[in-house]
Amino acid sequence: MYRKILMRMRMRMMNATRKVVVGWAKEYKRYLSTTTTNQILLSPPLVSVDLPEIWGSTSTLYHHHPSQSPVSHAKIINGKSIAEEITSRVASNVKRMKESIGKVPGLAVILVGQRRDSLTYVRNKIKACEEAGIKSVVAEFPDSCAEEDIMTSLSKFNEDPSVHGILVQLPLPEHLDEEKILNLVSLEKDVDGFHPINMGNLSMRGREPLFVPCTPKGCLELLLRSGVEIVGKKAVVIGRSNIVGLPIALLLQRHHATVTIVHACTKNPERITCEADIVVTAAGVPSLIRSSWLKPGAVVIDVGTCPVEDPSAEYGYRLVGDVCYEEALSIASAVTPVPGGVGPMTIAMLLCNTLDSAKWLYGFT
Amino acid sequence: MYRKILMRMRMRMMNATRKVVVGWAKEYKRYLSTTTTNQILLSPPLVSVDLPEIWGSTSTLYHHHPSQSPVSHAKIINGKSIAEEITSRVASNVKRMKESIGKVPGLAVILVGQRRDSLTYVRNKIKACEEAGIKSVVAEFPDSCAEEDIMTSLSKFNEDPSVHGILVQLPLPEHLDEEKILNLVSLEKDVDGFHPINMGNLSMRGREPLFVPCTPKGCLELLLRSGVEIVGKKAVVIGRSNIVGLPIALLLQRHHATVTIVHACTKNPERITCEADIVVTAAGVPSLIRSSWLKPGAVVIDVGTCPVEDPSAEYGYRLVGDVCYEEALSIASAVTPVPGGVGPMTIAMLLCNTLDSAKWLYGFT
Repeated sequence: MYRKILMRMRMRMMNATRKVVVGWAKEYKRYLSTTTTNQILLSPPLVSVDLPEIWGSTSTLYHHHPSQSPVSHAKIINGKSIAEEITSRVASNVKRMKESIGKVPGLAVILVGQRRDSLTYVRNKIKACEEAGIKSVVAEFPDSCAEEDIMTSLSKFNEDPSVHGILVQLPLPEHLDEEKILNLVSLEKDVDGFHPINMGNLSMRGREPLFVPCTPKGCLELLLRSGVEIVGKKAVVIGRSNIVGLPIALLLQRHHATVTIVHACTKNPERITCEADIVVTAAGVPSLIRSSWLKPGAVVIDVGTCPVEDPSAEYGYRLVGDVCYEEALSIASAVTPVPGGVGPMTIAMLLCNTLDSAKWLYGFT
Repeated sequence: MYRKILMRMRMRMMNATRKVVVGWAKEYKRYLSTTTTNQILLSPPLVSVDLPEIWGSTSTLYHHHPSQSPVSHAKIINGKSIAEEITSRVASNVKRMKESIGKVPGLAVILVGQRRDSLTYVRNKIKACEEAGIKSVVAEFPDSCAEEDIMTSLSKFNEDPSVHGILVQLPLPEHLDEEKILNLVSLEKDVDGFHPINMGNLSMRGREPLFVPCTPKGCLELLLRSGVEIVGKKAVVIGRSNIVGLPIALLLQRHHATVTIVHACTKNPERITCEADIVVTAAGVPSLIRSSWLKPGAVVIDVGTCPVEDPSAEYGYRLVGDVCYEEALSIASAVTPVPGGVGPMTIAMLLCNTLDSAKWLYGFT
């Protein structure tokens, strides 16, 4: 009797769920396939892709595409050209804004110390701003600077109406309190999306962060533009940093993937990763991901960039990703190269976030 | 040459990692095994259990305990008696506080509407406060109340120095903006831990939320008190709600489990779940988890509570969890019952959070 009641309840729930979720899934797909004029990215507002959390049975709610058989050569996801396309769209939006209301977006960067990688990143960001017509300003501090100096500079940028985005280049020297500094960035100018409120709203269903961190947002855009289906797919994120691993996992989950985060304490990460339809790796370990880590037909997004000595290269070193690129090409269905994959997308997303911030402030669409 | 450099780098990283992480792992275990006077919970501050994110090779950094063979009868994790023990410790802390500084912790509850389950939950929470000597006050509103009325009441509680914890009983009626209401709760009184800043700080490494949501915190405490090792274990969380699934996943990850969240869009959740060492389920589907979903020796925490008709029960219904309890007993190594498992722990954690809040305010230890 009791079992019968249970069975009846489960059947009723299953049927109700299937209808509701399939209905929403259609809506979700429709949303993703719709682009409006002036829309720069495919990434929709996260609230709009939400699905009701109604539980069905163990049966599959979506068509299951069986994993593809090994492909002779994977599609190379050209982040450089996608980023260029996005940047040029940002530039035309900035131009339109300037002509229409006489304003341009402004980005302020706080740079502490002389780390070679940080200097390069900041230089690239400033250059990209210039190309897109975004005004930029860099406040540079010596390695040994006092926390108060940074806080004062940050407060000024928070007040400055010509600054729409503020970026603190990480990592900061050890003696500085990263949490305290990042928390001071005005929520409306937090174009890096690292403020705990933005991160909290990214993690919570039904909430919308003002800004999504740039690298994860770039990874998602690469997936969407490459036509990769995310709903119901198994995704493995390798690495759980606050700036890449965690937010990309949250983002994939909000797009209804089944996400596993693999990290330094994970036992047998290879076995877990090789079951994934989508692999996003941000471990920073050169060539960690061999072909044995990948399921045939998987989509691989390589966030890792590690400089390794190479006397034949222009500067004596070259950038290497987490993925054994040649091996991945022979088994995956799509792969991002390093360099030329995620890197340029990070900067393009920074421009998008800064433009969005200015648009919101001025009510410009 | 290039390959050699890579290999050398990987080897160096592996060795460095092993030393650092194993050192930290010892520290982590030492922390968990240390209890101090007046310490009510085993749950340590999250920052203290952080491990450096240094990547090693695919080799195992921790001793791998092979999954146990099927046990004839699982250990029943008695949430009721653990919760009673915690509540009695809270009570003695409250008594000590009263005797020492003449203050007691205060909890304010906002209750909207007449949902039977909400009424029961609130009644139980108030009763538990009384037993622990915590002052409580309930602001009741009709189903049709205006948002402003709740906001006004909330603001008063925020200002009231005798109130140390504020709880908005969820779910709220549809016409009310849950996000707006929860965001108004003062961060220092957010004993439910649902404020996006607390959630953001829970999700980010190196950060410490002021409060961890009660049900997830209770689940973790059950695991710790049952001696379940979490570091490096595969954990599957079923359900991704803001109040249970998401925060328990974040919490398990902060304790270095490898976490997968299974949800309504997951394909073949049974196959994923049956690989987990730890299963926390909060789907709200009676008897969803059959024995075939469980790995022999798994630890199963059942957060689901669904009322099902039962003419033989006192009120005509009984509470059923997500797990087929009898089946789980025959395959798992430990299981929480429903009722008497997670439920009482949720309330005990609410008392702990309210006590903590008062302790912080008064600087009382």
